[in-house]
Amino acid sequence: MSETQVDLIIDNGIVLTMNPNQGQITAGAVAVKNDRITAVGPAADLKGFTASKRIDARGGIIMPGLINTHTHAAMTLFRGLADDLPLMTWLNEHIFPAEAKLDDDTVYWGALLGCAEMIRSGTTCFCDMYLFEQAVARAAKNAGMRAVVGEVLFDFPSPNYGPIEKGFEYTENLIARWQDDDLIVPAVEPHSPYLCAPQLLEKAAGIAMDRKIPLVIHVSETKTEVQQIREKYSRTPMGHLAHLGILSPRLVACHCVVLSDDDMALMAQHDVKVAHNPESNMKLASGIAPVPQLTKQGICVGLGTDGCASNNNLDLFAEMDTAAKLHKVNTLDPTVADAASVLKMSTIDAARALGLDHLTGSLETGKKADIIVIDTHKPHLTPMYNPVSHLVYAVNGSDVAATIINGQVVMEDGRLSTLNQNEIFAKIREITAKIR
Amino acid sequence: MSETQVDLIIDNGIVLTMNPNQGQITAGAVAVKNDRITAVGPAADLKGFTASKRIDARGGIIMPGLINTHTHAAMTLFRGLADDLPLMTWLNEHIFPAEAKLDDDTVYWGALLGCAEMIRSGTTCFCDMYLFEQAVARAAKNAGMRAVVGEVLFDFPSPNYGPIEKGFEYTENLIARWQDDDLIVPAVEPHSPYLCAPQLLEKAAGIAMDRKIPLVIHVSETKTEVQQIREKYSRTPMGHLAHLGILSPRLVACHCVVLSDDDMALMAQHDVKVAHNPESNMKLASGIAPVPQLTKQGICVGLGTDGCASNNNLDLFAEMDTAAKLHKVNTLDPTVADAASVLKMSTIDAARALGLDHLTGSLETGKKADIIVIDTHKPHLTPMYNPVSHLVYAVNGSDVAATIINGQVVMEDGRLSTLNQNEIFAKIREITAKIR
Repeated sequence: MSETQVDLIIDNGIVLTMNPNQGQITAGAVAVKNDRITAVGPAADLKGFTASKRIDARGGIIMPGLINTHTHAAMTLFRGLADDLPLMTWLNEHIFPAEAKLDDDTVYWGALLGCAEMIRSGTTCFCDMYLFEQAVARAAKNAGMRAVVGEVLFDFPSPNYGPIEKGFEYTENLIARWQDDDLIVPAVEPHSPYLCAPQLLEKAAGIAMDRKIPLVIHVSETKTEVQQIREKYSRTPMGHLAHLGILSPRLVACHCVVLSDDDMALMAQHDVKVAHNPESNMKLASGIAPVPQLTKQGICVGLGTDGCASNNNLDLFAEMDTAAKLHKVNTLDPTVADAASVLKMSTIDAARALGLDHLTGSLETGKKADIIVIDTHKPHLTPMYNPVSHLVYAVNGSDVAATIINGQVVMEDGRLSTLNQNEIFAKIREITAKIR
Repeated sequence: MSETQVDLIIDNGIVLTMNPNQGQITAGAVAVKNDRITAVGPAADLKGFTASKRIDARGGIIMPGLINTHTHAAMTLFRGLADDLPLMTWLNEHIFPAEAKLDDDTVYWGALLGCAEMIRSGTTCFCDMYLFEQAVARAAKNAGMRAVVGEVLFDFPSPNYGPIEKGFEYTENLIARWQDDDLIVPAVEPHSPYLCAPQLLEKAAGIAMDRKIPLVIHVSETKTEVQQIREKYSRTPMGHLAHLGILSPRLVACHCVVLSDDDMALMAQHDVKVAHNPESNMKLASGIAPVPQLTKQGICVGLGTDGCASNNNLDLFAEMDTAAKLHKVNTLDPTVADAASVLKMSTIDAARALGLDHLTGSLETGKKADIIVIDTHKPHLTPMYNPVSHLVYAVNGSDVAATIINGQVVMEDGRLSTLNQNEIFAKIREITAKIR
């Protein structure tokens, strides 16, 4: 039997493929060549591969990297700046004044800090909405992370681009710069129905449709928003977007906390994707998205952390735990949001939500090598009857032993290969001294 | 100035004393001699102390060890054994059959695993209820942990002691064995109003009163329980306990999910303590305890994790995060369960709930040296505007760099000094092979 040379073999672990055809492989291995997975299977079947590098999972779990469907990575800069306040006090007296001090450089370093945190906690791909999004794209690229990036668009002047015409120009430049990149996917990202006039929304949707890229928007985050939109347009926010012809499989609707049955029917009909951010919705006291109802109707739900000002971390393992428990107590039904479903929300379903499931979200031959390894040799992960249960209910981000993105080992045993952590910390100290 | 010799100095960090008179000390230090704190203050004020051992907090946080007011430590054995099931299926088909296989030895190793997990995640004291509680006491003692231990008492025959008379004998032996110990506090622990006849409850309360030790009980965990007790006794569970004359400052009422206004008035009147277990109540779909209402009435609430079968970890940092967020979304008020209040629930208020606030729960000269150090030099804890915010919303158990209990350094940089982690893992593998 001739040997096949690959770049990387990860073995000595349970492989959770998140691919329904292959499921869970008890003594599994994954082989990587260049940026792709070249084989997944029982370790015995991969004996014919030789690799220049091997990662020993030491009896742990080998699985797809997690995907954060909604965040504002640079808001790591505001982690713990202000908490436990009424929404308007928090925004007007703390977050907005802090954001007014941002520029391309500060957003770059804030996003880089976010990438460091995400890589260390097993996230390999994130969908970002913020100001100065070119800086976020550069940060993700330099970190070696996969990212969907879009400049936030709204009616009032932006601290980045100024008037909205310039916002569309900025978006076009973002698309032009990154459309052929192998890690960065540009998107069009109007803020919300309440901060964007119908013309803005229609134009944004038109660009997304033409370029075949995601359209990302906050929708129905709070009761107040729904009331405002009802007063202004006599429709729910989702009904308003439907009326504008904007609902489509490319639409990533973030939050979706307050939905009517008609809203959900529209979303199912148009295959709208949902980014569900339970921890942020809890911390800001927005409410609880009706996720069991959404998934029952076949609507694709991905998990997100939202930004660090309202979470206050980017740990998708913690987010899975919260999601699984929150929907149980909210419905008083312990069988909803089971571990397997929630794990899909941060892997394959999250990939589908972002239109990236042909590339990532599961371990399959031919897909991009976005892989993480979980170290389960720890008291809080002992014993292990069921890896899926552990990943949702017991693992936290600190248990990630290795992170591989696009075939590159970006973290191993806590050491980041693409980023200089101490340099980032020093820069963040400088920036936050000005924000404080 | 003459030098004072101590055993341990912890410095180069922010000291969070959780003592209202001293608050937070930016460049602080703590000195320990034998089992006690001999000084807490600005590092400059402790220059006169010399110590045989120094722990450098490296700019992190020095704080009291966390206190878990309700758990079943040995249920680590069932972590992830069964999840996402209807309550009765879960209990009757999975937990009860597994518990029938337990004995003194298996409970010892399960509890030891729990101690390893708690020590590594910054818990220095826990209140336990289970079968074979002598084994739990031995495990805690060997681990060097502070613990309140009580054999669970109920009407039907126990896999440990058999008939209830033997249960009281077991409890008397537990008290006799541990009443003078400096780490272990015996307690009397009837299971609940629905599994304990009035006579059992009265007798248990009598012993607790005579011996001046805690009386720990599950109360009002689910709507079903409240209905059952109402049907049987025409009172709420708390009303039933009040009628039996059992409410007192020594009563630790675990869960308290379903409470009436009258229940809360009774609890306030008798200074009843509450052990709040939000993650378990969420996972089992029991409901949400009215914690903001309880604390508004001055009722002392401590946090607990409950057992690993319904959580599935013993991480009080994760529990704090969940508690703070859950009550916000439940009341739709982002100002409730603020970080400072929640941090008290796992430190000084938890100590008060267990009657141990003269010994632990805060860093004060003369108290027992139960201290933890948090490593904040990590991406997910950068920047740090407010240590209290970080502890509740961003830290997880894996960020604990050192744990000191009763003056003994039981963990430093992940290494346990009192326990052999690999030996525990090997024993747990043997035991769980039989349970599976």
